[in-house]
Amino acid sequence: MDYFLKNKNKELDEFSKIFPILMNDIIYELEIQSFPKESIQWIETMLKANAFGGKMNRGISVLHSLELLKENCKLTSNEIFHAQILGWCIELFQAFFLVADDIMDQSITRRGQPCWYRQKKPNSQDFVGSIAINDAFLIESCIYIIIEKYFINESYYSKILNLFHKTSFQTQLGQLLDLINQPNRGDFSLFNLKRYNQIAQYKTAYYSFYLPVALAMLIAKINYEQAFSTAKDILLPMGEFFQVQDDFLDCYGSPAVIGKIGRDIEENKCSWMICQAILNGTPEQTEKLKKHYGIDNPSDVEIVKKIYDEINLKKVFKEYEDKSYNLLIEKIKSICIHVPQGVFLKLLSKIYKRDL
Amino acid sequence: MDYFLKNKNKELDEFSKIFPILMNDIIYELEIQSFPKESIQWIETMLKANAFGGKMNRGISVLHSLELLKENCKLTSNEIFHAQILGWCIELFQAFFLVADDIMDQSITRRGQPCWYRQKKPNSQDFVGSIAINDAFLIESCIYIIIEKYFINESYYSKILNLFHKTSFQTQLGQLLDLINQPNRGDFSLFNLKRYNQIAQYKTAYYSFYLPVALAMLIAKINYEQAFSTAKDILLPMGEFFQVQDDFLDCYGSPAVIGKIGRDIEENKCSWMICQAILNGTPEQTEKLKKHYGIDNPSDVEIVKKIYDEINLKKVFKEYEDKSYNLLIEKIKSICIHVPQGVFLKLLSKIYKRDL
Repeated sequence: MDYFLKNKNKELDEFSKIFPILMNDIIYELEIQSFPKESIQWIETMLKANAFGGKMNRGISVLHSLELLKENCKLTSNEIFHAQILGWCIELFQAFFLVADDIMDQSITRRGQPCWYRQKKPNSQDFVGSIAINDAFLIESCIYIIIEKYFINESYYSKILNLFHKTSFQTQLGQLLDLINQPNRGDFSLFNLKRYNQIAQYKTAYYSFYLPVALAMLIAKINYEQAFSTAKDILLPMGEFFQVQDDFLDCYGSPAVIGKIGRDIEENKCSWMICQAILNGTPEQTEKLKKHYGIDNPSDVEIVKKIYDEINLKKVFKEYEDKSYNLLIEKIKSICIHVPQGVFLKLLSKIYKRDL
Repeated sequence: MDYFLKNKNKELDEFSKIFPILMNDIIYELEIQSFPKESIQWIETMLKANAFGGKMNRGISVLHSLELLKENCKLTSNEIFHAQILGWCIELFQAFFLVADDIMDQSITRRGQPCWYRQKKPNSQDFVGSIAINDAFLIESCIYIIIEKYFINESYYSKILNLFHKTSFQTQLGQLLDLINQPNRGDFSLFNLKRYNQIAQYKTAYYSFYLPVALAMLIAKINYEQAFSTAKDILLPMGEFFQVQDDFLDCYGSPAVIGKIGRDIEENKCSWMICQAILNGTPEQTEKLKKHYGIDNPSDVEIVKKIYDEINLKKVFKEYEDKSYNLLIEKIKSICIHVPQGVFLKLLSKIYKRDL
């Protein structure tokens, strides 16, 4: 095992250790209110199944960013603990959205398991089903219970709350844009890169890239507005690239690696792939795509993927990846005045050229 | 038109006038972020369809409570505006839960209209469907956008946020208890008044009764913890009674008056009615209820309602209503030290003996 991997595993271990502490906080809240044991067991099972697991990149990023923000000072154990807690709040935030999105998108699997709404209820043969909607809300509420417990006396307490509220709204707006951007199957009039980028920015970039860094900046007691807008200027395009990659992997990634079975084609999604296919394909190819895109049937999906191959979207992606990487490096070098460049370079190194 | 009704209509008019102001705040937020017009139209339609309408009792209660809390001073226009805004935040809070609950309960109508998820999308023949889940989240986010805009500079800003967060969690816990309290159809082992009261307290009483008064207390700058716990001691039992009444009306109320078609029997709900039927019925009646309760079929529902009539649940309800009214009056008179009694008597007068 090389040094890098060992270090990464250690970090993951340290981060994972915080989760049971926060779970116990929630369970304690329920116990002092005399909740029946089956409801406590439900919440425990539900939180474990949805909030724990995955790569936990977003959660760990808070501490990474804080370390780089305070590069010349050793972090106190309290600062580290605070960063890990807010990291878990981002993991909870993501879980809250994924549980709901999976229902809305009728997804099948998530992180190699059936989606929560498709899992069996604790001690029952029935499925969780639509109770998962309320579970998504509960996960969100846990974020605020935890933040209140650990941050209420911090000067930046209400700033954390405002940031989570705003990020929720942005993510939901992104989800709305995504959901209503599919007027009728076969109508490509709304599938274009401008719209695509707006969806990616709102649905993914704010919570996956801006949120972890902004939280670290709050813990570091950075106060000037300009620092936050500089961070946004870099992190939103980074998040957009991440979403492009996600769309590419939805089509070309292996389910074993990405932990889910891609369904963007079946679901008639305004994916980067279809936008690029429309942009780069011949009128004949576009017509054929219109006939077969957005149908939940393997042979139609096959035809769409074949056209993607003909247009050579793998090459289009490769070129886009290189170009966007260079642009971001340039941006980081030119506009980083208030925040150390390392914060952004670290995040960038995590996502570029990730495994297909 | 009598004086009381005229006054009530005027109050409703004044309260209703605030809604478009808050809608415009939200729409302005979207416009400055260059959201596509169809998404803005969606949010406008969705907020109007779900947050505006109904009796708006909870929303108006904030101003009522504030008037009674500051009985000897004339309220400033700013205080009135603040109370109305937080009143609308409760209406949004309720809308957020109702939109989601209607999906989970597979409800048909709400306030005399098809439930939101069963309505047609703006400019489309398709139904809103599961997009309503994201809409519920969006409604919740609007609460925090509005509170930030109007209260960020108030000393009690983070107290408002904590109160909404806690109330969300409580309401979701109540919903969870309600949803998992139906192990298998025909199994009545969890249907009892103790469990019933816990569900009612968490699912309804906190947000419908405690929240409006507690918000008014914050605007009035009441600071001592004791005042809030006194309010809770009175308002939670009041909310429990309200839920009992709701369950009674689900069975015996007219759909035209209550604005929905009761489905507690079909949905195998742990309703006050079934708990009382088990408590007051003969073993034979209970056995028969086990056979027919929780089935979505008119003739089974008919049989259940016939047994309710045999047990004379109307009389059981009447007696409960009188008893709980007297108990509450007694409680209000005995423990109100920090808060004027009028605050609680006003709320009580709104709900007791409401129309069947």
